[in-house]
Amino acid sequence: VELGFKSNICGLARVLQKDIDAVRDSDLSYAHLFIGTSPLHRDYKLKKSKEEILNQAIEAVEYAKDHGLTVEFSAEDATRTELNYLIEFYKGVEGAGADIINVPDTVGILVPSTTRDLIRILRKKINVPISLHFHNDFGLAVSNSIIGIEEGANQAHCTINGIGERAGNTSLEELVVSLKIAYGANIGVDTTKLYDTSNFIGSITGIKMPPTKPIVGENAFAHESGIHVDGILKNTSTYEPIPPELVGHKRRIALGKHTGHAGIKSKLEEFNIEVSPKQFENIYNQVKTLGDKGKCITDEDLKSIAITELSTSGKEYIKLLGLNVMTGESVSATATVRLSIEGKVLETSQIGVGPVDAAIGAIKSLVKETVDINLEEYRLEAVSGGTDALAETFVVISDNDGHRATGRATREDVIISSVVAVINSINRLLAIEKNS
Amino acid sequence: VELGFKSNICGLARVLQKDIDAVRDSDLSYAHLFIGTSPLHRDYKLKKSKEEILNQAIEAVEYAKDHGLTVEFSAEDATRTELNYLIEFYKGVEGAGADIINVPDTVGILVPSTTRDLIRILRKKINVPISLHFHNDFGLAVSNSIIGIEEGANQAHCTINGIGERAGNTSLEELVVSLKIAYGANIGVDTTKLYDTSNFIGSITGIKMPPTKPIVGENAFAHESGIHVDGILKNTSTYEPIPPELVGHKRRIALGKHTGHAGIKSKLEEFNIEVSPKQFENIYNQVKTLGDKGKCITDEDLKSIAITELSTSGKEYIKLLGLNVMTGESVSATATVRLSIEGKVLETSQIGVGPVDAAIGAIKSLVKETVDINLEEYRLEAVSGGTDALAETFVVISDNDGHRATGRATREDVIISSVVAVINSINRLLAIEKNS
Repeated sequence: VELGFKSNICGLARVLQKDIDAVRDSDLSYAHLFIGTSPLHRDYKLKKSKEEILNQAIEAVEYAKDHGLTVEFSAEDATRTELNYLIEFYKGVEGAGADIINVPDTVGILVPSTTRDLIRILRKKINVPISLHFHNDFGLAVSNSIIGIEEGANQAHCTINGIGERAGNTSLEELVVSLKIAYGANIGVDTTKLYDTSNFIGSITGIKMPPTKPIVGENAFAHESGIHVDGILKNTSTYEPIPPELVGHKRRIALGKHTGHAGIKSKLEEFNIEVSPKQFENIYNQVKTLGDKGKCITDEDLKSIAITELSTSGKEYIKLLGLNVMTGESVSATATVRLSIEGKVLETSQIGVGPVDAAIGAIKSLVKETVDINLEEYRLEAVSGGTDALAETFVVISDNDGHRATGRATREDVIISSVVAVINSINRLLAIEKNS
Repeated sequence: VELGFKSNICGLARVLQKDIDAVRDSDLSYAHLFIGTSPLHRDYKLKKSKEEILNQAIEAVEYAKDHGLTVEFSAEDATRTELNYLIEFYKGVEGAGADIINVPDTVGILVPSTTRDLIRILRKKINVPISLHFHNDFGLAVSNSIIGIEEGANQAHCTINGIGERAGNTSLEELVVSLKIAYGANIGVDTTKLYDTSNFIGSITGIKMPPTKPIVGENAFAHESGIHVDGILKNTSTYEPIPPELVGHKRRIALGKHTGHAGIKSKLEEFNIEVSPKQFENIYNQVKTLGDKGKCITDEDLKSIAITELSTSGKEYIKLLGLNVMTGESVSATATVRLSIEGKVLETSQIGVGPVDAAIGAIKSLVKETVDINLEEYRLEAVSGGTDALAETFVVISDNDGHRATGRATREDVIISSVVAVINSINRLLAIEKNS
């Protein structure tokens, strides 16, 4: 509260004086009170009658209002509560002074028609604003919120990426963009921040959204199928409901098993790589083969495939002749590397914080005269199984002219795997340099 | 087709004789023909007039029907097509013999009310079955399909996990379970296979669903918040719309930052671990601290925390005194390990397929007299960044009596990290053995 954000912070509280006091002690002026009203919650969780629950709710509202709080009130599990009792309950807490009535679909059982009926009825009976708190157990939270708003609800509870208990809650980004695009409703959210915000929340919660997540997923504006890519290249609106910039995202032509000629052609043009029809056919076939294996082909992969096709062979400028690494608890990790660099044999040793760091450092210093590489990214893909499982490493390197190349390798020994991936990437980088 | 599955396989085809012939050449009897009808598709993609497009569609249907195919016809981008032309187009292909009319929401722009209006109108104009092909760009594909079916549509296109171009299509598992639970519709899908099927599709496509995915996500039936767990322990229906077994899934009490007393108590009872109120408070606080750091606390983590709390101190039965590993291109990876085991110093060396394998092998052989461990799981969590990034390793070990313990460690050196994680896990396993 002290940070002075331009937001209204609400504290959740059971209908207990100590919870309401805790909200006040946190310097909040807005409390969300709740108690279960459905038969299941009354009989099994609370073991109280309808009258007891309503009385406890009314007392809590009066206590909170007497202490100056704005009160939103939830009948937990409202959507499995007898309609007559639910209306009686809501009118009771409204009468006691509640400022907002919240309708929680606690286990996410509403479907479009039941949502419409319920909110339509409640809107007629209740005079204060209605708020919606919907769960996503059947994947319907966003749609139900839209329907509730169509029927006169004034507020919807949302979370970024829809995170929450079980299948989560209404996804903020999906609701906001739907309301903006389909209804022209400007609700004051800067949509251009949605993509970055989603990624930030994904990284701090550890709950990563899949590429197919609407609005913010990596594929939300990616086009792979040949027919779609062909359309997008003619006019982006053919296969996009909104421009990706609206939500701070980017359009991407993805290459994979459904990629057609148009997608690969447009990529090669973008990279300024000219190929003959025969060379194009070879590149196309390699992309399709990789795609059929389930690989997502990156721009860098395509560049490497094309360059290799252009240079008569995937030439090995640099070869690994020898490698020896040592590490332990009392000395720094040490690596000795012997390379043949365009025919010349060079060898050096280097220390590092770990054996991979030491080995890559030694390679960097050996190739320095030929190419000054920066390691942009080093990724050891998860190794799962036994300690003898395969370790797949992936690297991206660049030179000082901005050329980039990737390398991959898979070995049982994680260090050898890393070294081979780096050497592969250097060979590709040198091929790109010599062809540009 | 030859495999004789109990399914009806449909081939997608543009309105071209060669595509229709390809469907027939594949021994299929069911073709899905399509052509774009919206102004965007007509003007930019196809560069054809309304009449040309309709004529081409009619010719294609006649050709396909003449060759004995069942025909479903899509007006691609139907939902952005002028309504009058769309009706004229659909009646045209219906007149030409199309067996099913499909309504594609190609860029996923339908919302609940527009879906209801569109399908209601089409249902009045069209006599053959109506099929729905909805995209999920705003997260509304499942809900829109339900509304379409409410309005008389007879079929909906779905994919497992909702995978598809961009934000994907209607998710089969969400639609099937919604129709079954909310409408009592039995559509012949064995729902108990949904969880396994989703995981299978996730692993072969490489598109993993997040824990919050409805129906099939890891958290779809997990309960973490104190209030929810308390309710679930009294009656599972309080916070579950359906029993997890219905979709082949499992209920899980998750431990994390929102965990309350009831969740941890129930877990400890399940493990037959008795603790004093003071010890419980210490365990509770450790779980909360880990949860606040964003950690998901596994059952094994809780067991380790509790056992450590029960034994007066987290005793180090085994200590690492020295470690030396070597690997290279021409010799097998070799590790030398020196351990103090309950006060006794032992040392050995062993070779392996990589340095981690060698080091763990050496440790296993050193502790063999004290405890015979099996490495159940070894996971090197992705290391991203530079080669000097931290490597986090995680292991699960077991002894021959079925006790299990986990170990974690984070170091810059992946080998040292692995060794320390294994030694941690052995110390925990010994604590569990001595307390059981």
